[in-house]
Amino acid sequence: MTSSRGPNSRGPNSRGRVELVCVGDELLVGDVLNGNAAWLGDKLCRAGLPVAAVVTVGDDVDEIAAALLAASARAEVVVVTGGLGPTSDDVTREGLAAAAVVPLLRDAEVEAGLERWYAERDLSMPGLVLRQADVPRGATVVPNPRGTAPGLRMELATAMVYVLPGVPAEMTSMAERHVLPEIVSRAGRPGPSVQRVVRVALEGEPVVASRPEWRDDAEGIRIGYLAEPGEVRVRVTGRDAAAVTRVAKQAAVLLGPAAFTEDDDTLDAVVHRLLAERNATVAVAESLTGGLLAAALTAAPGSSATFRGGLTAYATDVKGSDLGVDEALLAAEGPVDPDVARQMASGVRERFGATYGLATTGVAGPEPVGERPVGTVFVAMDGPRGRALASRRLTGDRDRIRRLTVIHALDLLRRHLVGLPAYDPGDEIGQ
Amino acid sequence: MTSSRGPNSRGPNSRGRVELVCVGDELLVGDVLNGNAAWLGDKLCRAGLPVAAVVTVGDDVDEIAAALLAASARAEVVVVTGGLGPTSDDVTREGLAAAAVVPLLRDAEVEAGLERWYAERDLSMPGLVLRQADVPRGATVVPNPRGTAPGLRMELATAMVYVLPGVPAEMTSMAERHVLPEIVSRAGRPGPSVQRVVRVALEGEPVVASRPEWRDDAEGIRIGYLAEPGEVRVRVTGRDAAAVTRVAKQAAVLLGPAAFTEDDDTLDAVVHRLLAERNATVAVAESLTGGLLAAALTAAPGSSATFRGGLTAYATDVKGSDLGVDEALLAAEGPVDPDVARQMASGVRERFGATYGLATTGVAGPEPVGERPVGTVFVAMDGPRGRALASRRLTGDRDRIRRLTVIHALDLLRRHLVGLPAYDPGDEIGQ
Repeated sequence: MTSSRGPNSRGPNSRGRVELVCVGDELLVGDVLNGNAAWLGDKLCRAGLPVAAVVTVGDDVDEIAAALLAASARAEVVVVTGGLGPTSDDVTREGLAAAAVVPLLRDAEVEAGLERWYAERDLSMPGLVLRQADVPRGATVVPNPRGTAPGLRMELATAMVYVLPGVPAEMTSMAERHVLPEIVSRAGRPGPSVQRVVRVALEGEPVVASRPEWRDDAEGIRIGYLAEPGEVRVRVTGRDAAAVTRVAKQAAVLLGPAAFTEDDDTLDAVVHRLLAERNATVAVAESLTGGLLAAALTAAPGSSATFRGGLTAYATDVKGSDLGVDEALLAAEGPVDPDVARQMASGVRERFGATYGLATTGVAGPEPVGERPVGTVFVAMDGPRGRALASRRLTGDRDRIRRLTVIHALDLLRRHLVGLPAYDPGDEIGQ
Repeated sequence: MTSSRGPNSRGPNSRGRVELVCVGDELLVGDVLNGNAAWLGDKLCRAGLPVAAVVTVGDDVDEIAAALLAASARAEVVVVTGGLGPTSDDVTREGLAAAAVVPLLRDAEVEAGLERWYAERDLSMPGLVLRQADVPRGATVVPNPRGTAPGLRMELATAMVYVLPGVPAEMTSMAERHVLPEIVSRAGRPGPSVQRVVRVALEGEPVVASRPEWRDDAEGIRIGYLAEPGEVRVRVTGRDAAAVTRVAKQAAVLLGPAAFTEDDDTLDAVVHRLLAERNATVAVAESLTGGLLAAALTAAPGSSATFRGGLTAYATDVKGSDLGVDEALLAAEGPVDPDVARQMASGVRERFGATYGLATTGVAGPEPVGERPVGTVFVAMDGPRGRALASRRLTGDRDRIRRLTVIHALDLLRRHLVGLPAYDPGDEIGQ
C-alpha cells in the first residue's frame, strides 16, 4: 500500500496539515459545484501544502461549529469558505463563535468600511449588510479587496483558522492577497511539489493505466489518473522537478498519438498553438454542436489570429444556402450524413477563406433524426493537404454528446496538423 | 439562529442523517470539480434525505479509513464515491477493509464478470483490472450497469456504507438503479421536501436578499440565496408544497422583471420557450462570445424549432462581408462599437430569415481593442417590433466576460419578448 502514500498523505495531526471547510447549503443540495475547494486545493498543492481533506457542511451553526472543531483538532491550518454574506442564511460567523465559545462583537472599523463601500457607489446600504461587521471575540479581520464581507483569522485548538467569503472573485483575491502568503510563511516553505499533466484524448482509463512500464513509486514520483468524457489526464507529481519531467515525457511517449500535452494544456489551446506555428487559420461549420466548437477555438487569448469564423447551420436549409451543401444530397440523406459533413467542411473553409475547414453534424438527441439514432456523429476536416472524416456512435445525454463531438473535431484537426492518422477506435459506423 | 435550522439540519447521530465521503487526489488538488457530490446531493435532497456533510479525502488508505469511521459514527447512511478503479491509486477497497478491520478477499463471481466484460468487447483484460474483484470480508457487491468496477455495501458502526465508482456515468447509473432506492426504503420515506428556485438575471445578491417582505422562517419555509456571475438563484425549500409555491411566487413578484423563472429553468430554456410560444425564431451574430451564445440557444432539446443559425464573425472583415456591416463604419470605429452591434443584429436576422437577430461585440481581453478597454461590451437585438441595445463595462477575466455577455444578450431578448424594458444598471458607457 506504500504506493498510496503520496503528497496528500500527511496523516492526522502531522505538521503542516491543511484542511478546508466549505459552508453552504447550495453545495450540499447540488445547486453549485465546489469551485472554491478546487481553486484552493490547486494553489495550496503548488505551494507544497496539499490539502488533506475537505469538509462541506450546510448553513447551520451547529454543523459549522462541529466541522471547525474536528478540523482544527487534526490540522495546523484550516481554511473556511462561505457563509460570510449579508443574508440570514450566512451563519459562519456564528459557527466560528460557537466553536470558540465566544460572543460576536460588532467591529466599528468594519462597520464604517461597509458604510463607505456603499456610499462610494451611491447605493443605499441594506440593513442586513451590517451583520458582516460581527466578529467573534479574539478573531482578527482580513480585508476584502473585492467586496463587502471581510474575512476572519482566529486560533482554534492547535490550528489557525482562516475564514474567506464564498463568492469566488472575493475569495480568490482575499486568498492571493492576504491568506495564502501568510499560510506559506507560517509553514516555513516545505518546498513546492512539482506537477506535470499528460492529457490524452479519446482513450479510456484502463488503456492508459495498464501501460506496463509505469511504476507509481519511482523516485518518490506519484502518478494519478483522471478520466473525463473524451479525455484522460495523467498527473505526475513529486518534489524532484527533473524526475517529474522525465516520467511525464516517458508517459507521453508510451501513450503515443493520443497524448496531446505534457503541460496540462487544453486540447483547444494545443490546436490554437499548432495553427499559430503554421500561420494557419480555421473556420468551422456546426450543426449538433451549435457553437460549442467555435467557442472552444476562441477560448484562448489571441485566437483571433487562428480563428476566421464559424457558422452554426442549425436549420437544414442553411446548410444548403450558406455552405453550398448539395441540396439533392440533403434531400436524399438528410442533414446527418458523412458527405454532408465533408461538404460543410469544404464549404466553410472556402467561404471564410481559412486554411482549414472543420464541420460537425449528428444527432445530439433526445430524438433521432430520420433513421439516424441518437449519438450518430460525423466530423469532417478539409485542408490544403487533404481531408479527414470521423464517424462515431456516441453514448450519453445531449450535453455529453455535444461535448464529445467537440473533442473529436479538435482531435481530428490536431492529428492532421502534426501528421498523425485520425483516431480509430475500430467502431466506425456505416456510411 | 433558528433561521439557520433548515432541511439540512439534522444534528449529529439523528435518524436518517446522510453523509458523503468522496475519494480522489484529483478532487483535493483541484484537477476536477466534485460533480458526484453535487449530483448525489440533489437526488438525496429531492428524496427528502438532504446530505448533512460531504468529506473529501485523497487516495490514501489511512485517510479513507479515518473518514469512513468518523462519518459512520455520525450518520445512518454513508455514500462513498471514487477509488474503485483498476489503477494502483484506487485504494477505497483497502480503506474500507482497514476501517472494518477485515481482510480483502477476491470475489470469484466478480472476477468472472470482469473477464466476461472484456471478452464481450474483444479486449484483452489488463491484469490490474482484477483488483476490482477484491471485496472486504462482510461486504456485499453492488452491480455496475455501466462499467467494470462493482460497488460495495457494508455495515460499519451504526451506518450502512455504500461505495460507488468515481466515474460519473457509472456512479449515477449504479445509484439510480440500486443504491438510492435502497436508501430511501431503509429511511422509511420521510416524505420528500419540495423545492422551487426563482432565478434572477443581472442583479446582485444584496439587492435580492434585502427585499424587506421576506422572512426565512415563514411556515417552515427556508430561503437560500446563491449568487453566480450575472445571476442569483433564490431557492425556496419546505415540506408544504402549497406554501413553497406561494412563497416562490411572492418572491418572483417582489423581484420584478429580473426574475425569469420560478421553476429553476435556465435563461436559455426560458428564451427558447418564449420564442416557441410565439412561433418565432432567432439568429445570432457573435464576436467576443465566439459561439457561446449560439451554444446556449441550442442547449435545449427542440431548439431547432426556434434557432435558425449563428455566425461567429471573429475576423473583422467577416463582419463586413458576411453581415453587411458598413465597411466605412468598421474602418472608422473598429469592430467594438454600438452601431456595429446594431448592424450585426439586423444583418444576421436578414441573412438567416429569423424573426429576431441578436449580436454581441466587445473586448474579452486580455488585451484592449483600439481605445476600447477590456470588458467593453455591446449587445444588440433587432426584431419586428423594434430594436434594443445594451452597453456594458464588465469586469473579470476573459471567460467571465464572455459568459456575462451571453447572459446580457439572452436577457435583452427575453425582456423584449415579454414586453419589458431592457435592464438598466445605470452604468451605460459612452457610445
